[in-house]
Amino acid sequence: MSIFPKLDPQAQKFRQEADTFGNLEVPADRYWGAQTQRSLQNFDIGGPTERMPEPLIKAFGVLKRAAATVNMTYGLDQTVGQAIVKASDEVIEGKLLDHFPLVVWQTGSGTQTNMNVNEVISNRAIELLGGELGSKKPVHPNDHVNMSQSSNDTFPTAMHVAAAIEINQRLIPSVTLLRDAIQAKSEEFKDIIKIGRTHLQDATPLTLGQEFSGYVQQLTYGIQRVEATLPRLYNLAQGGTAVGTGLNTREGFDVKVAEAISGITKLPFKTAPNKFEALAAHDAIVEAHGALNVLAVSLMKIANDIRFLGSGPRCGLGELNLPENEPGSSIMGNNTTVSVAGSNGHFELNVFKPVMIKNTIQSIRLLSDACVSFTKNCVVGIEANEKKINAIMNESLMLVTALNPYIGYDNAAKCAKKAHKEGTTLKEAAMSLGLLNEQQFKEWVRPELMLGPTKK
Amino acid sequence: MSIFPKLDPQAQKFRQEADTFGNLEVPADRYWGAQTQRSLQNFDIGGPTERMPEPLIKAFGVLKRAAATVNMTYGLDQTVGQAIVKASDEVIEGKLLDHFPLVVWQTGSGTQTNMNVNEVISNRAIELLGGELGSKKPVHPNDHVNMSQSSNDTFPTAMHVAAAIEINQRLIPSVTLLRDAIQAKSEEFKDIIKIGRTHLQDATPLTLGQEFSGYVQQLTYGIQRVEATLPRLYNLAQGGTAVGTGLNTREGFDVKVAEAISGITKLPFKTAPNKFEALAAHDAIVEAHGALNVLAVSLMKIANDIRFLGSGPRCGLGELNLPENEPGSSIMGNNTTVSVAGSNGHFELNVFKPVMIKNTIQSIRLLSDACVSFTKNCVVGIEANEKKINAIMNESLMLVTALNPYIGYDNAAKCAKKAHKEGTTLKEAAMSLGLLNEQQFKEWVRPELMLGPTKK
Amino acid sequence: MSIFPKLDPQAQKFRQEADTFGNLEVPADRYWGAQTQRSLQNFDIGGPTERMPEPLIKAFGVLKRAAATVNMTYGLDQTVGQAIVKASDEVIEGKLLDHFPLVVWQTGSGTQTNMNVNEVISNRAIELLGGELGSKKPVHPNDHVNMSQSSNDTFPTAMHVAAAIEINQRLIPSVTLLRDAIQAKSEEFKDIIKIGRTHLQDATPLTLGQEFSGYVQQLTYGIQRVEATLPRLYNLAQGGTAVGTGLNTREGFDVKVAEAISGITKLPFKTAPNKFEALAAHDAIVEAHGALNVLAVSLMKIANDIRFLGSGPRCGLGELNLPENEPGSSIMGNNTTVSVAGSNGHFELNVFKPVMIKNTIQSIRLLSDACVSFTKNCVVGIEANEKKINAIMNESLMLVTALNPYIGYDNAAKCAKKAHKEGTTLKEAAMSLGLLNEQQFKEWVRPELMLGPTKK
Amino acid sequence: MSIFPKLDPQAQKFRQEADTFGNLEVPADRYWGAQTQRSLQNFDIGGPTERMPEPLIKAFGVLKRAAATVNMTYGLDQTVGQAIVKASDEVIEGKLLDHFPLVVWQTGSGTQTNMNVNEVISNRAIELLGGELGSKKPVHPNDHVNMSQSSNDTFPTAMHVAAAIEINQRLIPSVTLLRDAIQAKSEEFKDIIKIGRTHLQDATPLTLGQEFSGYVQQLTYGIQRVEATLPRLYNLAQGGTAVGTGLNTREGFDVKVAEAISGITKLPFKTAPNKFEALAAHDAIVEAHGALNVLAVSLMKIANDIRFLGSGPRCGLGELNLPENEPGSSIMGNNTTVSVAGSNGHFELNVFKPVMIKNTIQSIRLLSDACVSFTKNCVVGIEANEKKINAIMNESLMLVTALNPYIGYDNAAKCAKKAHKEGTTLKEAAMSLGLLNEQQFKEWVRPELMLGPTKK
Repeated sequence: MSIFPKLDPQAQKFRQEADTFGNLEVPADRYWGAQTQRSLQNFDIGGPTERMPEPLIKAFGVLKRAAATVNMTYGLDQTVGQAIVKASDEVIEGKLLDHFPLVVWQTGSGTQTNMNVNEVISNRAIELLGGELGSKKPVHPNDHVNMSQSSNDTFPTAMHVAAAIEINQRLIPSVTLLRDAIQAKSEEFKDIIKIGRTHLQDATPLTLGQEFSGYVQQLTYGIQRVEATLPRLYNLAQGGTAVGTGLNTREGFDVKVAEAISGITKLPFKTAPNKFEALAAHDAIVEAHGALNVLAVSLMKIANDIRFLGSGPRCGLGELNLPENEPGSSIMGNNTTVSVAGSNGHFELNVFKPVMIKNTIQSIRLLSDACVSFTKNCVVGIEANEKKINAIMNESLMLVTALNPYIGYDNAAKCAKKAHKEGTTLKEAAMSLGLLNEQQFKEWVRPELMLGPTKK
Repeated sequence: MSIFPKLDPQAQKFRQEADTFGNLEVPADRYWGAQTQRSLQNFDIGGPTERMPEPLIKAFGVLKRAAATVNMTYGLDQTVGQAIVKASDEVIEGKLLDHFPLVVWQTGSGTQTNMNVNEVISNRAIELLGGELGSKKPVHPNDHVNMSQSSNDTFPTAMHVAAAIEINQRLIPSVTLLRDAIQAKSEEFKDIIKIGRTHLQDATPLTLGQEFSGYVQQLTYGIQRVEATLPRLYNLAQGGTAVGTGLNTREGFDVKVAEAISGITKLPFKTAPNKFEALAAHDAIVEAHGALNVLAVSLMKIANDIRFLGSGPRCGLGELNLPENEPGSSIMGNNTTVSVAGSNGHFELNVFKPVMIKNTIQSIRLLSDACVSFTKNCVVGIEANEKKINAIMNESLMLVTALNPYIGYDNAAKCAKKAHKEGTTLKEAAMSLGLLNEQQFKEWVRPELMLGPTKK
Repeated sequence: MSIFPKLDPQAQKFRQEADTFGNLEVPADRYWGAQTQRSLQNFDIGGPTERMPEPLIKAFGVLKRAAATVNMTYGLDQTVGQAIVKASDEVIEGKLLDHFPLVVWQTGSGTQTNMNVNEVISNRAIELLGGELGSKKPVHPNDHVNMSQSSNDTFPTAMHVAAAIEINQRLIPSVTLLRDAIQAKSEEFKDIIKIGRTHLQDATPLTLGQEFSGYVQQLTYGIQRVEATLPRLYNLAQGGTAVGTGLNTREGFDVKVAEAISGITKLPFKTAPNKFEALAAHDAIVEAHGALNVLAVSLMKIANDIRFLGSGPRCGLGELNLPENEPGSSIMGNNTTVSVAGSNGHFELNVFKPVMIKNTIQSIRLLSDACVSFTKNCVVGIEANEKKINAIMNESLMLVTALNPYIGYDNAAKCAKKAHKEGTTLKEAAMSLGLLNEQQFKEWVRPELMLGPTKK
Repeated sequence: MSIFPKLDPQAQKFRQEADTFGNLEVPADRYWGAQTQRSLQNFDIGGPTERMPEPLIKAFGVLKRAAATVNMTYGLDQTVGQAIVKASDEVIEGKLLDHFPLVVWQTGSGTQTNMNVNEVISNRAIELLGGELGSKKPVHPNDHVNMSQSSNDTFPTAMHVAAAIEINQRLIPSVTLLRDAIQAKSEEFKDIIKIGRTHLQDATPLTLGQEFSGYVQQLTYGIQRVEATLPRLYNLAQGGTAVGTGLNTREGFDVKVAEAISGITKLPFKTAPNKFEALAAHDAIVEAHGALNVLAVSLMKIANDIRFLGSGPRCGLGELNLPENEPGSSIMGNNTTVSVAGSNGHFELNVFKPVMIKNTIQSIRLLSDACVSFTKNCVVGIEANEKKINAIMNESLMLVTALNPYIGYDNAAKCAKKAHKEGTTLKEAAMSLGLLNEQQFKEWVRPELMLGPTKK
């Protein structure tokens, strides 16, 4: 099943497009040009599911718009510039997504996708100005749309813009939604005392609300962790051109483009302090993915707990129900991919850019959607089975811990061992050992007093 | 080969120690007790190289000293408390390392190591007070050394203390040393113009100093990244006891212990805002290791570049020499281990604590030592082979980029293709295409003018 | 951009479908039913690129056809059975792919996809028999299409069938294609003597053909490695039903279904010797992916070598050109995903099935396509730049190794050090050290005699 | 704490050793020489726990013995050769382990360790012959011990020998021990009917013996998987010398050395069919580690199941007790390390050899020891709590599956839903729905008849 159902070779009409290698036929109803078409034919790897992710294409729209704006202040013809701005806006709005067919398994600098963007914006701008598609006039894909730019600085710029937007607009709201839903449950359950479990063994009691508060803290930290990586994502490579020197740009271009991008996105992008690093390494992406990895680790912990607490309905522990859709292992795998890819850069350019951004955007998307789905389909409907929780807790031998301050650790341990061995209650065991009387047990072993430190 | 050569069973004398399971023979010249001995016999996994790392043992010394200090304010006998403080100091100073034989492959909460610490400090304190080893009098390992504590809160506390100390005292100085050495080289090489390389293909020129400045930036960010994880490492679990509620502590104990630890270490530790999270998850370790992972990725990039630039001496690119001791892949592997372990916690306790801290401390150590070794054995001695650098650059066809603003992208591309195909120089190709004259080429193609943006 | 462009809610017509939870509206032109529709609404995670991979859907077609055939021998109505067979054939042929919209992030047993298949085949069979879509008559999705089956045994069966087909029909031919192309180059280059490089440093010579023969061996082993995992992939879970016991099947059903699948696919599938393992673990997938991982490792090595050998055109080593489309890091990441997922099974069912098969099929596809693309776009066009190869080799100091047998290792080392230090040739250095004369050098240092062991 | 306690610089005596870089002081009671000492000083990375693993050192002993034997047939002086043989035997027996202080973070070819071995054997052989340590006479470390060898072929040979021995002598017996212990339990528990669990939810019953039989199958396959990687580990690089050509060996040397190694080890080693591959790639190690990875995945599954089944004692599921010492996550991390390292080879030599073999040997050791410990400390003592198992099972609603063939899937589902909602038994629900009578329920729902397919 093709994702471009109209591209039936029989039915289709074509136009001629040219690049330095010669002429090529391009589908008449597509804005892309010769270089895109050539890449489509050369890089037949993986099929439609491996295409450049949408957020990256939209980020390129942001970038091309910003560059045109700045270039107009440096002499780019206003008519040409404005047409580029309009076409870029359509890219940003997602109207032209059918015109970006390339997969990530292309040249590792993302050159073909940069050219795809240049060609689509150029042709769409030409169309807006009433020109002929493929003529490169009056809007040339290289000389105008790519003016003062190189694939080597546009692609890493688009990577950062896409990742930062996805994190801000998709991930953080989704994680916050889940965090708040669990927070609400934590408050709802604040008075339900239950058995604690360590090593899957019975331990001292806590409230269900306390247990959930741990999850809330994990997610609160998770948001902080992701946010802590943003400062370096906000640094943009644009203006470095081919190797980081900024050759063929004008002084100040880098700063102005970053400001323009910041203006469009309302995010605090700025020009990277060192463009050599910005092209040659993608440590900022590895770093951001590391924070996604921690989030995945947290979510696996939380989801597993809730799954196990919800095991049953009759032969397990008891309460909840969870769709098994945790993408945690996938995020951990993506983290390996991104790390290996990030470590394999050479000299002035890391050439694993496409796979790094694809996996990062996938991780953001999966984590975000999973948080929303988990909240909606599971968390908000969690109900505590108080009857079972209470019954389980009162069987526990671990209430013995409450006796430590009164009879010492060694004696308390003896009570628990005796009760376990003989299948009796703690009280019976402690009394038969002569360590306390019934009244003392009642006074000392009170779960509701075992939920925090001793008052001063 | 044993790492405890004196422990020859023939030659050795033993004393009796007891725990709740009964009596056991312990080597007479060791301070550990029955529980440690039992663990030694039960967990025969991996041998000496798998032992708990030294920084963790020392961190336990810090913790036990701090707890004793605070416990004295809550009623612990001063003589007992001071003896614990003295014994703990010996642990901190590394004097008792021969008394911690346990491997990380023990109970996942680190219970045996906590008991090992309790037993060693108790026996050493007894000895200091003139008592009999193994008598548990006047210093009891549980009732006194472990007072108001549980393995479940001491081990994660020691993990954070150890990781934070190692990062501050070992890692950051080592990375800074390397960063500064590369910075010095970057300045030394600021006027050496060389060919840039992208996709391993010739690109436009830059200075060797600019190239090295990218590495400096990577390491500067690397330090920032690691530092950005410290706030969550500074949050301590101590005071949570068995399940996070703080049962069997006194109100305020958690805050005071963290203050005491901060006083000993001069690092801004404080009590964790949520003890349930602090016991049940180790996201802070996963996060910190993620930052180590980025550093490993950066170092692999830098080391590979320098290796390739140093390839030769006669048949490669030419300048430098590097010991092949990059631990990058090992750190990436540790990152997977730590992530998988971090994701497998259940309920109130993550039980992969030992392997998490072992791998984290190994990663810190390897990165630190590698930075120092790389600096000392390689970076400080790097010399630029200017003759070769200059010869290589002048052969490049990529100087053609300088012509883009004068003759347009398409024409410039034609020049380069023609020169490549015919094996001629760029100048010859451009002139034979009638695109410029000799004077123009000389004026337009000047590597020294290709190192940055065009002045306004 | 939707991958189902016709599913415009405005324009669309719907029909009613029902399951045990009640009624639901389903697009009138789709064969899926209520359970699929419910899943579509509940599991909105990741979007179209996360859908179940096509080879898995087709494998389900194989399985449902085989089950119907066997069920007819156990009493399934022939008319119903034959209709199921016909509908299954359409699934196998890929005609119904638009009817499988579910993503992998569903219930971890793949239940929804099994039901999607049951519903589509049931409705298509009903249509073939002239019935009403959604009526479940005369072909019921559960009672007939899923007869004697459970999601818990069908999904793992389809996983194995899909993986084995993809390996046999896609991967092995693609790797073989590449292997043979490199083999041809190895023979073409058998007489071209070049410098060897170890640690990126000049080493003793070998032929370019010998160098390429190493790559051939890697790929030959790679094919063997993948083939060595097939025996366990050929073991099918079918017949285990819900927990491995085979409840609700008839004796012999498992054996017959495996035979039928083998008949359809011409691959030696057989029933798994232990169904409990086959449902509860997916070690066979982890194992197969491990072999893919080795292949990725091999391809990264080979591609990196060729990239570096092709660095230039003027400032690098020299010969070749390679599209930067190595998916190696992605496969390694998938390996982590599959391992983590494989390790997280619990009790009678591993519930990470969908992500495991998705990543495995993606890895197979990417490796296969990359091998074909690499062969076509790179390997077949590789030409040796003999002039440069020869020039480089003759500058090497490592020809000194040839002197070891004549003047000893220590003396040979002195020659090389002297020549390196003074920038002279080896011959000059050796002669000035008085270790040999010109005639001896000429006789002893002959690259063409350095390509193998000394004849006896 | 030093692992070489005698190496106190104050107390120690030294002797002079020399290499091509000059003289160096070496501890008088150590056999190593100048090159080892230089490496010790240059590669101060990670400390004693990072030393070359013992099995690798012993494998070097095997190799040097074999080479000396073969070299004697090619003219090596018999006295010298026999002394090398004797000294090598001491290495094999582990008598000289104190003389191998180097860490894995050395030159990536393992050159320093090869030299360490050469120096130790040379000096020990000199001593055996009454010569002077450090004199290199009459046994020269390079000319005699390393005769016809290079670090580049000895180290990969020792890697394969060490890995193959450890797999055969340590891993396979340990996994077999565990497999057999679980097999015995599977038989012991063959009549205990229990509830099955899928998605942690109650499912149809099976016997505890059947459940355990799945683990047995996993381990049986695991052994097969590891064994399936041995053919490629048995292929030895020896005879390839520096770059794979075999320069400076005599024809047939490679074959004879492999035969000699096979004779010493009683394992079917043979010379590698392609030495270029054997030096430049370590895919065989990546492959073997992949099989270890599957084993780790299997063990995590099995150990988790048993941990969860043993949760309690009062508030969990109920039966068993397990030391929390699963090294699974560590093996998965090592797999990433080995894969990344394996993928980073360049040209004629992979230079991540030391870390690859260290992690592989660690994985083998940890898996082996864990299997033994798990068997001894857990599996053999597992007892089924039949009372609890039976009570749990009889509460289950999933016995409803037995009704599918009688009342159809939809009706059966209705019964279970009704019982769940109303908290009644299945029988009550089914009867109140009028789907069956009491007699039918009794006849149809019989757990003991739900353990396998219906007889024909």
